[in-house]
Amino acid sequence: METMWAGVKPGRAAGADFREVRIPQIDDNHLLIKTRAASICGTDKHIYNWDKWAEGRLKPPLVFGHECCGEVVEIGKNIKGIKVGDIIAAESHIPCGVCKQCRMGNMHICDNLVILGVDTDGIFAEYVALPEIVCWKVDKHLDPAIASIHEPFGNAVYTTMSANVSTKRIAIIGDGPTAAFSCGIAKAVGAERIYNIGMADFNLNICKTMGAHVSINVTRDKDFKQRIWDETSGGVDVVLDMAGNQKSVETGFEILRKAGTLVMFGIPPDAVMIDVNKSIIFKGATVIGINGRKMFETWYQMQALLDGGMVDPRPVITHRYPFKRFLEAVDMFATGKEPSSKVVLMME
Amino acid sequence: METMWAGVKPGRAAGADFREVRIPQIDDNHLLIKTRAASICGTDKHIYNWDKWAEGRLKPPLVFGHECCGEVVEIGKNIKGIKVGDIIAAESHIPCGVCKQCRMGNMHICDNLVILGVDTDGIFAEYVALPEIVCWKVDKHLDPAIASIHEPFGNAVYTTMSANVSTKRIAIIGDGPTAAFSCGIAKAVGAERIYNIGMADFNLNICKTMGAHVSINVTRDKDFKQRIWDETSGGVDVVLDMAGNQKSVETGFEILRKAGTLVMFGIPPDAVMIDVNKSIIFKGATVIGINGRKMFETWYQMQALLDGGMVDPRPVITHRYPFKRFLEAVDMFATGKEPSSKVVLMME
Amino acid sequence: METMWAGVKPGRAAGADFREVRIPQIDDNHLLIKTRAASICGTDKHIYNWDKWAEGRLKPPLVFGHECCGEVVEIGKNIKGIKVGDIIAAESHIPCGVCKQCRMGNMHICDNLVILGVDTDGIFAEYVALPEIVCWKVDKHLDPAIASIHEPFGNAVYTTMSANVSTKRIAIIGDGPTAAFSCGIAKAVGAERIYNIGMADFNLNICKTMGAHVSINVTRDKDFKQRIWDETSGGVDVVLDMAGNQKSVETGFEILRKAGTLVMFGIPPDAVMIDVNKSIIFKGATVIGINGRKMFETWYQMQALLDGGMVDPRPVITHRYPFKRFLEAVDMFATGKEPSSKVVLMME
Amino acid sequence: METMWAGVKPGRAAGADFREVRIPQIDDNHLLIKTRAASICGTDKHIYNWDKWAEGRLKPPLVFGHECCGEVVEIGKNIKGIKVGDIIAAESHIPCGVCKQCRMGNMHICDNLVILGVDTDGIFAEYVALPEIVCWKVDKHLDPAIASIHEPFGNAVYTTMSANVSTKRIAIIGDGPTAAFSCGIAKAVGAERIYNIGMADFNLNICKTMGAHVSINVTRDKDFKQRIWDETSGGVDVVLDMAGNQKSVETGFEILRKAGTLVMFGIPPDAVMIDVNKSIIFKGATVIGINGRKMFETWYQMQALLDGGMVDPRPVITHRYPFKRFLEAVDMFATGKEPSSKVVLMME
Repeated sequence: METMWAGVKPGRAAGADFREVRIPQIDDNHLLIKTRAASICGTDKHIYNWDKWAEGRLKPPLVFGHECCGEVVEIGKNIKGIKVGDIIAAESHIPCGVCKQCRMGNMHICDNLVILGVDTDGIFAEYVALPEIVCWKVDKHLDPAIASIHEPFGNAVYTTMSANVSTKRIAIIGDGPTAAFSCGIAKAVGAERIYNIGMADFNLNICKTMGAHVSINVTRDKDFKQRIWDETSGGVDVVLDMAGNQKSVETGFEILRKAGTLVMFGIPPDAVMIDVNKSIIFKGATVIGINGRKMFETWYQMQALLDGGMVDPRPVITHRYPFKRFLEAVDMFATGKEPSSKVVLMME
Repeated sequence: METMWAGVKPGRAAGADFREVRIPQIDDNHLLIKTRAASICGTDKHIYNWDKWAEGRLKPPLVFGHECCGEVVEIGKNIKGIKVGDIIAAESHIPCGVCKQCRMGNMHICDNLVILGVDTDGIFAEYVALPEIVCWKVDKHLDPAIASIHEPFGNAVYTTMSANVSTKRIAIIGDGPTAAFSCGIAKAVGAERIYNIGMADFNLNICKTMGAHVSINVTRDKDFKQRIWDETSGGVDVVLDMAGNQKSVETGFEILRKAGTLVMFGIPPDAVMIDVNKSIIFKGATVIGINGRKMFETWYQMQALLDGGMVDPRPVITHRYPFKRFLEAVDMFATGKEPSSKVVLMME
Repeated sequence: METMWAGVKPGRAAGADFREVRIPQIDDNHLLIKTRAASICGTDKHIYNWDKWAEGRLKPPLVFGHECCGEVVEIGKNIKGIKVGDIIAAESHIPCGVCKQCRMGNMHICDNLVILGVDTDGIFAEYVALPEIVCWKVDKHLDPAIASIHEPFGNAVYTTMSANVSTKRIAIIGDGPTAAFSCGIAKAVGAERIYNIGMADFNLNICKTMGAHVSINVTRDKDFKQRIWDETSGGVDVVLDMAGNQKSVETGFEILRKAGTLVMFGIPPDAVMIDVNKSIIFKGATVIGINGRKMFETWYQMQALLDGGMVDPRPVITHRYPFKRFLEAVDMFATGKEPSSKVVLMME
Repeated sequence: METMWAGVKPGRAAGADFREVRIPQIDDNHLLIKTRAASICGTDKHIYNWDKWAEGRLKPPLVFGHECCGEVVEIGKNIKGIKVGDIIAAESHIPCGVCKQCRMGNMHICDNLVILGVDTDGIFAEYVALPEIVCWKVDKHLDPAIASIHEPFGNAVYTTMSANVSTKRIAIIGDGPTAAFSCGIAKAVGAERIYNIGMADFNLNICKTMGAHVSINVTRDKDFKQRIWDETSGGVDVVLDMAGNQKSVETGFEILRKAGTLVMFGIPPDAVMIDVNKSIIFKGATVIGINGRKMFETWYQMQALLDGGMVDPRPVITHRYPFKRFLEAVDMFATGKEPSSKVVLMME
């Protein structure tokens, strides 16, 4: 029996463990991946801190983590399109393939969805077993850190591409890694002007490097809504809300033009009060909820953007830790000891 | 100087007047219409009752009313496509034609919109002057009452057609005339199942006659949400909210399936509390706000539905009054003395 | 070793055989279906007659036939959503599930497509082994003949729904079974007017029963193009070409209005000469090529239309034969001895 | 009576005249424009050379030319959104505003379309009278040559934006000015890879400067189709055919992937032979015909691209002539004496 090192949620309390566990076995329909890099998500912070959501959803002990890339080291006999030695990035949503949502092209909201590192053992580990459908081949020469952030980058791609931003004036509300990726994506596909609205200069600067034309720090700038309104002659065409709170949703609708589109990716902690008459009905607005990534339209778009070199995501990767410093990395990220955006664990 | 009879808002208080006023003059770009039938809208109730909205928007004295059909009796010299003797139904939204919204195909939310009977003299009158763009030719043999309800029927068409309801299971929340029209339209374009959710048996019965498959009276039926959920294996594909209140919006999201579409036409009196995570984001839902009618895609659809005989709107027309009983009709409708749906004034 | 009766293409020549062959074995990812009804397709005629296409594609001996329904009698251990006793209709296109087309939601044009009864043993047999992805559960009480024609009905659904025909005036060119199904579908989803253009009164009458408003026999009616043009004030909104020849494509473009959509399902025997300036560019037209059925959006639409009773396909089913008369049925159909539309073999 | 200099087609024969004509008068609904720059289109070449198309369409004498910018020097009393001193670029298609196409948002294919410089006096003149709808305000500081090429640039924008090219691999067939603009536009909105296929190195080089990633000269490169096929693993996502001939259409379909989109802007001199089975049906392809510019969605996109500085069109403007050398300029262009792309006449 062989073992590997893994980042584990050992029980129903805050914290994590870095310990040896068994290397997973694969059957005919799975592949075994040797992890090369793994990045840490906000979800992992919820798991580490053991909040209400984690309490209701997880069943420890569990290897957590769901953003990774790795090398295929073993394949089941039914695998058709991938071979040993291929490098893959993992889609974290494992779909059943036969429910109504899957059959309608919505595998990302499969009725029987299993999420890596949440519902099943994840990727903060030297090895992980995956079904073929969630294995996405990437260029062998791609920096493993870039390969590992496909999953969160995909959130940004799906959000940004779900509204048609080319030649449009848009606002991206939020300054975390997904907002930063979105700034880069919107720039790459030709948004005319990107207003980026956030709260932390450290993060706003990353967003600016990625492509935002105008950075607004709401803690200092009090007149920005009127200014955007005037500069755009009546509001931006598209708002991407990646902050997810009462204030950000309100702001989003206030600066949205008539017949505009507001895309919701940020997850507010509570219900949000919306003046639907003014915000949605009289404006003739469209609101789109985003969850996960479109499987696999989003991934083909990512292939062009990342492998094709149209977006360089490296300014967003503020920290790289060797895997053995897992506990230090996850603690730094979860407690916000240092300003950070994307934190990646390097296995090699 | 010639005069005509008209339904007038005389001043800044509740009530209305039926009096003689001057017949409007037309210039080179307008037509003069001799009204044949005019129907009463919920907006007219607000004007009659002189509520807060009316107080903020109207400048009496004003001829009100905006749903009508009539015969063209005089045309300006620049009129290109309509001639004396044509019968027209009027679009109530008069667009400027050159603002950004107009140029983008959204004349219904024109930046310089003038609404008949609200911002300018309306159609509760024997004659009305209109620009060509809002005059829609209808079949001469169409019942004038049917011709007069094109405008509100258009709201129902735009709402219903903005989600793709063919072969879908849908819920129509509300039981007023627009909801009733929508039941007829959704049936005509092949919705598989129409759940109609309302509060008044009188109106629910009209909706059923129009095409609803299942009628639900929420004052009596307490388990309908679970029942719809089970019968549809996870929610309806489309919700048309035509009731417009906290409860209806909540209900709409509760019975909507993942990746479904909720269309908002009903106008809530206050802001609405929405659990956007559960309702929109995790569902990957789309929300569409509807205002007016698409000019003029909606009108071509109406032509097929009404002139083409695909929908018979007559069950919704519960009352017809001769124009001289204007005050009685508008009072009955505004006070709800009798159960009613669409009330039409017949000029001839 | 158990055997079953099957309709077989024994070798590289015209004709067929009805003989005993081995019952297929299933592995973990397949189901065994006991066939209840099987219908005969134009493709089967090509196979029977052994034309150039068949010569280039098939590798006899092979059980042919690909339109069927049946009862699940055995399931592999990886099957998730279907159980023994379920009744299924089969999608004839077996996709790989992991190629680019499959991952983009286009399983019907999978890069590694295997077609039942063409590339692998088909369903003119008492039993057939299928992977779960192509098994579509139908209502147990549905007439097996109706259940068996889901596959060709799906061609008609995909073709008809790919253009938005609700409230539109359309032309359906062709009078075979797919055209007849399309007449029924277009009627069910609210096409305002359906012009059906064909060559055989027997088939045109079936199309009329299904829902065509106007039947045109081109062998007699010489002025129909001008008449359609005038009645529609400048051409139909949508043309569905299901005849597939130089004449039908020409006719389709001639009666199409500006900004209209022409959908091509019919397969011309040779290249077609198109005046693209007049037909496509100056009209601002859109042309859509249709192949197979959208997996599985089309099937959900079929579920509403067939199981939901919105379309009754029985007028199209002109012949039913017991399975043991297979050779007589296929010969009648392939040689056109009798006028026919859809011919179904009943296994029970 | 005041006169101005103008480029005139004097009669039904090849050639042109540069002469004094009357300055047009405006009525209440028109504006008078003092032309600042005018560019020469392929259509003007047809008029100059007096080919079959010109013979069938024009009624000389006529001021020709339809691509221009200028300053508003006088306005009719019904003009709402433009004032004296504004700088405008002209849309060359003058729509009626009330026909079905106009009411459906398709003014560019208006049933009563009047084309500047073809059906009515055009803009090779010091002054031109225009209705407000075709006057598009541009930045006063924009180079007049750039402002004058909005019209042809708009063809490229409409063609390129009608297929969704962001993150896609595309082919642009043709190397004239519209193809060159499209290379710039596709690059600006994030096409992953642009294959530009042409015949003249002079023009291919302009396309490359504008943004093409790969230039292919078909007179030398014989294997390019197979190479594109291999590099794209099965064909490009989108083809823009701007060459318009049997060979270019054939090539376009040959290098198009399954489920791809081919947009036709080039106008073949004759009907084109298309193997629709292989090219359209089995591929599940979509074909879109493009004519003019979308009024006015395309113009807002142009505003972002040109005024917003996302595309610099100057490499395409190979020649600038003072207006008094009109005859020399049009002759050089029409006879191809020098290699050229866009030729602009500068009025000031």
